[in-house]
Amino acid sequence: MSGFEAATAVQRVEDGRYEVDLDGDFGFAEALNGGYLMAVLDRAAVDASPHEHPVSTAASFLRPVKPGRAEVVVDTRKTGRTAATALVGLVQDGRPAVEALITTGTLGAAAEPAFAGPAPAVPVPPLEECSGELPHEGTEGFAGRVDMRFDRSTMGWLDGTPSGRPEIRAWFRLRDGHVPDAFALALAVDALPPVALNLGSKGWAPTVQLTWHMRAVPAPGWLAVHGTGRLLSDGWFDEEVEVWDSAGRLVAQSRQIARAGIGVKK
Amino acid sequence: MSGFEAATAVQRVEDGRYEVDLDGDFGFAEALNGGYLMAVLDRAAVDASPHEHPVSTAASFLRPVKPGRAEVVVDTRKTGRTAATALVGLVQDGRPAVEALITTGTLGAAAEPAFAGPAPAVPVPPLEECSGELPHEGTEGFAGRVDMRFDRSTMGWLDGTPSGRPEIRAWFRLRDGHVPDAFALALAVDALPPVALNLGSKGWAPTVQLTWHMRAVPAPGWLAVHGTGRLLSDGWFDEEVEVWDSAGRLVAQSRQIARAGIGVKK
Repeated sequence: MSGFEAATAVQRVEDGRYEVDLDGDFGFAEALNGGYLMAVLDRAAVDASPHEHPVSTAASFLRPVKPGRAEVVVDTRKTGRTAATALVGLVQDGRPAVEALITTGTLGAAAEPAFAGPAPAVPVPPLEECSGELPHEGTEGFAGRVDMRFDRSTMGWLDGTPSGRPEIRAWFRLRDGHVPDAFALALAVDALPPVALNLGSKGWAPTVQLTWHMRAVPAPGWLAVHGTGRLLSDGWFDEEVEVWDSAGRLVAQSRQIARAGIGVKK
Repeated sequence: MSGFEAATAVQRVEDGRYEVDLDGDFGFAEALNGGYLMAVLDRAAVDASPHEHPVSTAASFLRPVKPGRAEVVVDTRKTGRTAATALVGLVQDGRPAVEALITTGTLGAAAEPAFAGPAPAVPVPPLEECSGELPHEGTEGFAGRVDMRFDRSTMGWLDGTPSGRPEIRAWFRLRDGHVPDAFALALAVDALPPVALNLGSKGWAPTVQLTWHMRAVPAPGWLAVHGTGRLLSDGWFDEEVEVWDSAGRLVAQSRQIARAGIGVKK
């Protein structure tokens, strides 16, 4: 079992109830990453469903989640022939921390799109032109698990020269060799630093709500992750992420709404 | 009380429980419109919250909803200083029909964006160049309540010449003079015909999941509604909607994932 697989494994206790042991490496300080938590919830949803993939995951993040034990509760609301929907909650210390409405379905690995829009206007530069780990991170914790290579033109915020454009682009893979799947996509859609950092926003930007859709079964290899935003207003900002696989297909799309970090420059 | 206000009114029975009388005009055939149902759920969420606006609504549509009586149940999961989150369900004939995670907050009517992305590349043409009601609709039912004027270049599917681009653009207002507010925005993000019609998709395209965010308090006047899509594959398609107000501000953004209509052209 790969490191990511073990870190997202759910242990069935009874119908609709799972125990998990959350891995502190998939977070920063004491707060676990939202994408990692969605991967855990998606695993439980798929386990409780006749379908194979988390086609749609809409998650509300209520409280920070700590490493260690937690419970996942899957409350199936409808099971249909092409899709099933459940309310999936992560409970820690007796309190709901994440709630998600998850629709499962089964995507064909060989499906050919009837229509596919254009790839993002600006591609992620070739790997060898991208920068590796964030300087303050080293290779412990999240950066020890996830290998990301950033488009340098989107990383000006690191040295105090934010681009003014809410965009961050990067290559993404798991360091343990885990082949991209639905659960890696859940992680990828929330793995970028907040795009609002390039607008002068500072510090932690807690995700309030994130919806992501799995659109195709990803091919092996690096994933290209494109983050953008439309509006920063009244302390709220949106972030859209598209994930493209090595075969050049859109495999996941997400939007989150988050609170801007404290110290945002107006 | 305006027609739309009456049609979306929720009657509090006890803490977290509301009765509604759903108005068949806000639908097609016997299935009510998803945006209308979200407006009802958002009203209940705001009523049960200390905050004023439905900042984020993530709705799963489980079963078609009929006109007439239904119950709305608001289960508050967290109440914070800047935001509160509740699970809000619409129950009809004893079965859950729509489930939504709704985060309420209070947006400042005079908030100035710290960053605003560009308006959509292609504007909705001037009103007088747009076409009025859909020919098969007349001014009964939905078209009797909602006044939409369509960009003709996005309506080729009507006469069998779909554009091949998943785009539909229109002006939007309520015929009863209801001034745009949060609840009108909920209706607006799901009021367009499915953009997949321009890809040769036919017939009913049931929304499986829709998440919309309210980004600003809308100014009075017409709303411009821009619908696009990225991918139609394996029977699933996404539709993104941006709603811009008469002051030229992005006031709502949504994405839905839906099943393609039967008879989709590959």
